Amino acid sequence: MAKDSIPECDWQVLVTKKRAQLNAQIPGEWRLSESFLASIPASGRLIEDDVVRRSGLLTDEELDITENYSAKELLSKLACGDTSSLQVTTAFCKRAAIANQVTSCLTEHFFEKALERARFLDDYLRKEKRVVGPLHGLPVSIKDSFCVEGIQSTVGYVSLLEKEPAASNSALVEMLLDLGAVLYVKTNVPQTMMTADSENNIFGRTLNPHNTHLTAGGSSGGEGALVAFRGSILGVGTDIAGSIRIPALCCGVYGFKPTVDRIPWGGQVADLAMEGLPGLKPAAGPLAHSLADIDLFMSTVLRAEPWKYDVTASAAPWQNISDTTNPQHALTIGILPEDAHFPLHPPVRRALDSAINALTKAGHRIVHLDPHPTRDLAYTNRLAFQYFIYGPHIDHIASSGEPMVPSVAKMSSPMFTGPFPVDMELPPYEKIDALHKTRQRYADTWRRVWVEHGLDVVLAPGAQNTAVPHDTYGWPPYTLIWNLLDYPACIIPYGKAAKELDPEPVILADGVQPSYDPNAVDGAPCAIQVIAPRFQDEKCLWAAAIVDRDIRS
Amino acid sequence: MAKDSIPECDWQVLVTKKRAQLNAQIPGEWRLSESFLASIPASGRLIEDDVVRRSGLLTDEELDITENYSAKELLSKLACGDTSSLQVTTAFCKRAAIANQVTSCLTEHFFEKALERARFLDDYLRKEKRVVGPLHGLPVSIKDSFCVEGIQSTVGYVSLLEKEPAASNSALVEMLLDLGAVLYVKTNVPQTMMTADSENNIFGRTLNPHNTHLTAGGSSGGEGALVAFRGSILGVGTDIAGSIRIPALCCGVYGFKPTVDRIPWGGQVADLAMEGLPGLKPAAGPLAHSLADIDLFMSTVLRAEPWKYDVTASAAPWQNISDTTNPQHALTIGILPEDAHFPLHPPVRRALDSAINALTKAGHRIVHLDPHPTRDLAYTNRLAFQYFIYGPHIDHIASSGEPMVPSVAKMSSPMFTGPFPVDMELPPYEKIDALHKTRQRYADTWRRVWVEHGLDVVLAPGAQNTAVPHDTYGWPPYTLIWNLLDYPACIIPYGKAAKELDPEPVILADGVQPSYDPNAVDGAPCAIQVIAPRFQDEKCLWAAAIVDRDIRS
Repeated sequence: MAKDSIPECDWQVLVTKKRAQLNAQIPGEWRLSESFLASIPASGRLIEDDVVRRSGLLTDEELDITENYSAKELLSKLACGDTSSLQVTTAFCKRAAIANQVTSCLTEHFFEKALERARFLDDYLRKEKRVVGPLHGLPVSIKDSFCVEGIQSTVGYVSLLEKEPAASNSALVEMLLDLGAVLYVKTNVPQTMMTADSENNIFGRTLNPHNTHLTAGGSSGGEGALVAFRGSILGVGTDIAGSIRIPALCCGVYGFKPTVDRIPWGGQVADLAMEGLPGLKPAAGPLAHSLADIDLFMSTVLRAEPWKYDVTASAAPWQNISDTTNPQHALTIGILPEDAHFPLHPPVRRALDSAINALTKAGHRIVHLDPHPTRDLAYTNRLAFQYFIYGPHIDHIASSGEPMVPSVAKMSSPMFTGPFPVDMELPPYEKIDALHKTRQRYADTWRRVWVEHGLDVVLAPGAQNTAVPHDTYGWPPYTLIWNLLDYPACIIPYGKAAKELDPEPVILADGVQPSYDPNAVDGAPCAIQVIAPRFQDEKCLWAAAIVDRDIRS
Repeated sequence: MAKDSIPECDWQVLVTKKRAQLNAQIPGEWRLSESFLASIPASGRLIEDDVVRRSGLLTDEELDITENYSAKELLSKLACGDTSSLQVTTAFCKRAAIANQVTSCLTEHFFEKALERARFLDDYLRKEKRVVGPLHGLPVSIKDSFCVEGIQSTVGYVSLLEKEPAASNSALVEMLLDLGAVLYVKTNVPQTMMTADSENNIFGRTLNPHNTHLTAGGSSGGEGALVAFRGSILGVGTDIAGSIRIPALCCGVYGFKPTVDRIPWGGQVADLAMEGLPGLKPAAGPLAHSLADIDLFMSTVLRAEPWKYDVTASAAPWQNISDTTNPQHALTIGILPEDAHFPLHPPVRRALDSAINALTKAGHRIVHLDPHPTRDLAYTNRLAFQYFIYGPHIDHIASSGEPMVPSVAKMSSPMFTGPFPVDMELPPYEKIDALHKTRQRYADTWRRVWVEHGLDVVLAPGAQNTAVPHDTYGWPPYTLIWNLLDYPACIIPYGKAAKELDPEPVILADGVQPSYDPNAVDGAPCAIQVIAPRFQDEKCLWAAAIVDRDIRS
């Protein structure tokens, strides 16, 4: 143990204190009783079990508000005074409080502050006869990495528990407030934010509300669980390897990873890594219940000129593609080939095949892309992994004395598939240059594929698997590829795993990737992923909406 | 001398051979006679002396084509068959050949190939009754760093003379050809492409056609001279510190440095530096005779989807601002304060003041930005300089045995103004991270200025000076700042230096920057610079057009 670290007993004291503080902020009448908690079925299927309704904590009106409208619809009702921000915020605060008690999906929550803001917005609308902005009165949840003035941002590191609350808002938080939104919770993440299991020693492990025996995904796992539970109508995550899309596909909601720096990134928990070193960059983006709400988030934020709030944000405005393009347009859709190192679990393959069939029937042109050595998925993942680890490592765990959580201790990597693409022994400058050139060459092969086939989008699985038992998710090859390319990518929930349809287990013996266990994942949501080239976020969502419609018709 | 280098005598042999080869490609009837060359006045004022008309080499029609139309107007005439590409191309080839004989503005020229292409395009239009693309038949000149299949790209390094001609086109070259343009020349650059004097040991020194005793600027100096001479109606340069804008302001033409990666950069002379290291990135952009033609180039290239040609090009489409905004809109214009380390020469200050007066009269809101330590121009320039030199240096000069040209040997730097912003002794990763953070902090102060004052654009000088005597240009502080910020910036020619109006010399004794010599620069073009935030290229040009109109009214 290092000299300046916190003794082991102390880290637990810090955590106990933090948990007690957070617990005290939940009103007594929003708490689930011991007997109710005991009544939750051992299957852990909280959504199927309708625990919120069963709990009796929400009024019928609050159930209606949280269950029967899109964010867009709620905004219309709020703007015309058909409902109040206080009503809507109360409903989502209560539902989020319940979600947290059964899934540990939250980190910080500040319900009092949120209700106060809601009252202010209601007053404003009443007096001024106009909304503060296009998100007037809508509760929006955000990942813990975003800073909210006066609230801590620990991202689950005990070593950050002794830091002061944030002195200012992240750029996106500032924008959301200027746009009229109500912030009420921050959501849970994995220790290091680099695993697909949102567990840490402060806030515990986020459980999947479809089945608490399964992971909610990560690193925006708290968002995934909260949105799926309808404790949030619109959430914001971040994604450097799949951290928006993995929770989305695990929890059965829509998730969109935009091109880097379109949604402002600035002002998040600082100095966790050497952000100035070239590498994969994280992107912030939405999780929601519909593509319309994903689009609402993107277009609203981008039309509010993020460059005014954040030095890293691009000033390229949001394009309204749907206005100029025929919605009956037949898409040319490339299908990403399955990689032999990362075979698909049967329910995932079934969902993808079903989507392809439906899209073919709807008249879209399907191009099955050949597996090609220059576009090898395993190679890409090794290159991305090399980017993650090539520079100095800053350890935020050891200094507090807290242990690594199991998913971090596992240290999954794609290196079981082959060697590093770039010589690890190169000196720093030469290594950075070689990594860059290797990545550009790889990206160029994808550019050529797109042009050669005249693709609109690529359709791919979001992962080999559905949500899997805790700490078994492994490496995320099918999401990470699009981070390496900085291509916008959208998760569309589609179908469910069913042990009747796919009864045979599949054992993967690579020591990293999850095996398929029909019983364990029965009923878990399936998903597909729609991808467009860099900066074509608008096109990605426009095509995703067509795909989303046609796979269900 | 290194063991594998070319002996000194050999480099001269290579150069002699190259020059003979190029010389042989100029038709006899396009050559200026010895007696004509002797008739050029000692003042070196080629444009004032109307050498092209005096030479008698161009027909009246060719003089008309090269002198009396914008690129836009020529394109209209070409598209309706009012003139042929053969006529237009012949006229510009001849004028470029003359320009080269009196200013050494070209590197490669391939007139035969160009005329053949023009004939093809004329045939196509005749047979197909439609144009190949929006640039159908228009000759476009490009800087030597762009690759054209079958043509060498040495960028003035003798060591590259033994390389094979380019095996493929740069992305932008490919686009220009697909759009219907005719390529006919590549233009001269300085050895290293990092000085403002376009001189090298292969192609010699480019002279300023307004006054051959003055520099044409650099590194796109060949473009500046050729466009000013009307040997090109539309030229393409590149800019990492001012390399489009310096020749533009020296030669009295319009020049635009876009945001990086909007005009595709890919496929230029490769491996001259470790491009994968973080640093300032160069941007390609146009030089022309009007803002309308600058806009034509930008909108035409960007609407042709550069991302399909180049993996580094952004897919953000060109916005048509003029369609949606009132042209009578009063601008809010910030004025960059003059820096004490880099005082303006009197004619430059006079041009700027005159512009500010005219803009004030026209009803625009002028905000004189305070000098502020966090936006210090000298500091910015030292940071940019540190970026240029922090990594390994690759020497392309020594290996051939050629000497450094004087402007390279001088090694101008801004270090006379203070220390490096970042500790030079830091290890590589830490240094890269520190440079990045320093740059982000600096950029953030500019973001705040823009928002705080509600600026549309900033107005600034393009340099302390006009074109100055050869090898005295020094360091380019007023252009480089916008490269560090990656802000689009446009040079508008405006007025002329006049010894009657500014008779007093100004001696700068810093050992780097040029003094003001009223006699030497008398008659040299002056210019102003219009700047907008990153990615707001459309806004920059839209506002520049308003400025350009109102400073002349």
